[in-house]
Amino acid sequence: MKIKKYSIGVDLGGTNLRIAAFTHDDGLLETILLPTRLAAGREAVVDDMCTAIRTLESRYSAAHELTGVGVGTPGPLELPAGVLHNPPNLTGWDGFDLRAAIESRLNRSVVLESDANVAALAEAILGSGRSMHLDSLCMLTLGTGVGNGIILNGKVWDGAAGMAGEAGHATIYPDGIPCPCGSYGCLEMYASATAVVRAANHRIATGTAPALAGSTWTAHSLADAADQGNMDAKQIFVDAGRALGISLAALVNTLNLPLYVVGGGLAQAWHLMKDTIFKELYQRSYVYRFTAPGSPLATRNPGGTTHVLPAELGPDAGLLGACILPFAESSLG
Amino acid sequence: MKIKKYSIGVDLGGTNLRIAAFTHDDGLLETILLPTRLAAGREAVVDDMCTAIRTLESRYSAAHELTGVGVGTPGPLELPAGVLHNPPNLTGWDGFDLRAAIESRLNRSVVLESDANVAALAEAILGSGRSMHLDSLCMLTLGTGVGNGIILNGKVWDGAAGMAGEAGHATIYPDGIPCPCGSYGCLEMYASATAVVRAANHRIATGTAPALAGSTWTAHSLADAADQGNMDAKQIFVDAGRALGISLAALVNTLNLPLYVVGGGLAQAWHLMKDTIFKELYQRSYVYRFTAPGSPLATRNPGGTTHVLPAELGPDAGLLGACILPFAESSLG
Repeated sequence: MKIKKYSIGVDLGGTNLRIAAFTHDDGLLETILLPTRLAAGREAVVDDMCTAIRTLESRYSAAHELTGVGVGTPGPLELPAGVLHNPPNLTGWDGFDLRAAIESRLNRSVVLESDANVAALAEAILGSGRSMHLDSLCMLTLGTGVGNGIILNGKVWDGAAGMAGEAGHATIYPDGIPCPCGSYGCLEMYASATAVVRAANHRIATGTAPALAGSTWTAHSLADAADQGNMDAKQIFVDAGRALGISLAALVNTLNLPLYVVGGGLAQAWHLMKDTIFKELYQRSYVYRFTAPGSPLATRNPGGTTHVLPAELGPDAGLLGACILPFAESSLG
Repeated sequence: MKIKKYSIGVDLGGTNLRIAAFTHDDGLLETILLPTRLAAGREAVVDDMCTAIRTLESRYSAAHELTGVGVGTPGPLELPAGVLHNPPNLTGWDGFDLRAAIESRLNRSVVLESDANVAALAEAILGSGRSMHLDSLCMLTLGTGVGNGIILNGKVWDGAAGMAGEAGHATIYPDGIPCPCGSYGCLEMYASATAVVRAANHRIATGTAPALAGSTWTAHSLADAADQGNMDAKQIFVDAGRALGISLAALVNTLNLPLYVVGGGLAQAWHLMKDTIFKELYQRSYVYRFTAPGSPLATRNPGGTTHVLPAELGPDAGLLGACILPFAESSLG
């Protein structure tokens, strides 16, 4: 009997810690879900992670061969070192050598990537990239912030220090909203779940959204209100779509990838943003106009088409991407 | 005696047509300079080009072996087809199959790239990339417009349809100056030679640059005036530097390449723009702050440093890049 190769993936988040065993044929074999005990300190969190990894290893290594362990972590993550640099979602972890902390406990090497990069890898290998037979893509993950990952020819593009894929902090409005990153007008300030709630509250406070006044909003309830015809709620998503369209136009013009994917929780409001996204893309990117589905170029040369789509994978993208990491190869710029 | 390999490169511009023979050891062996006879029509221009290529071939093929012919052309250029799409600097060439026109005359295959991509390739292989021992870079070429080329691991990043490297048309100011490309507020409208002259004329017309009034300006004379202390001229370059800094910050955040290079005629005013460029980079890119020369990360891990520099190569970059093309490999996304 041939022994199946499996991997163990870790999705380290600011709230939850998920550890799973995975094979290409069977997907997630088993997932261990733990709280991320930030209050107990980073060493305790790594202890929890490594205990779970060893639990899965003891359970699956009899019948399977372990290819490796992949870890997706909130960034900024320096590679190849594996050191975190002031990660906003892991307070107190600045300068933490996450790679050394894990590898010394497991006594084996692990593959590390930022969470947005592993989500993009999963989308490329198991999501829309697989469906479209395309192995290069740029993904924007709209959650608390805006994550970004770039996959070129099937590999994560890490950049020189592992910090590629921060298009969420590209400037959209140069004199716009101050961002915790130190800049102004970052995409993240306009197109994250946090941003649409902030925009609603700002409009309520300035009296420019009477149809929203008197309620407390979440990104989800705003989308529901928009779906039910609330014009002020609809405008919030039009504004988010404009920022996304400006960002995507720049990314299309710069990289001309065959596939751009929008994921994360706020992507559930794709239908509320897409008209504005494509209007901006058409206006701001002649590369997009030349290569959009249905254009003469795309009709003649389907491989040259630019596809812009909502992500196929849901909240498991980060965990699946971490599981794939040991099978994939990263590309250092 | 070992036969040396040589290439023939073509730099097709809207005004000049340059054709050269090249070896890696000896550089440009001979250059033929011709006017680009746009009024005579595109077939006549390709005739001129191919006659010059055959002249060089007959001269050098006795003692050398021809590796190939490389052509840099104004874009947008569709690859691998080799078809031009409404190129602003080659009026009347929309839809022209430049590859077929050249290959049918020469009866051999040629390597085509847009002019900004070949300039970036030259800078990577023969310019700052060679000096710094780095084979990935992003180049902005500030001329009549703003060209852009991206080199990853020594190869031109063409993108899915050959149209990567149009960061000159990334939006800087969403409601800014209308651009001939159909968008608003493109980098090209703020940081090209054309843009600084336009800015001077606009400021004169609106009475906001008294120290510039009464003269006709070129990018060169504006830089001279700034060097001589003209405050209004200085401000023009501060404004261009701000747009460049915003653009470079987004490119650093997105790609985290080890090297960003600014070339083209306006890069001669680098000293007038650089303080603003780096101020914006520091503010708008935490990837840059973490990886700038002198940062703890860069000191510990020199390969992770982000370098932002003026280009080493001058006006020959495009011709040299075309000559290198047959020796290099392109990377279709």
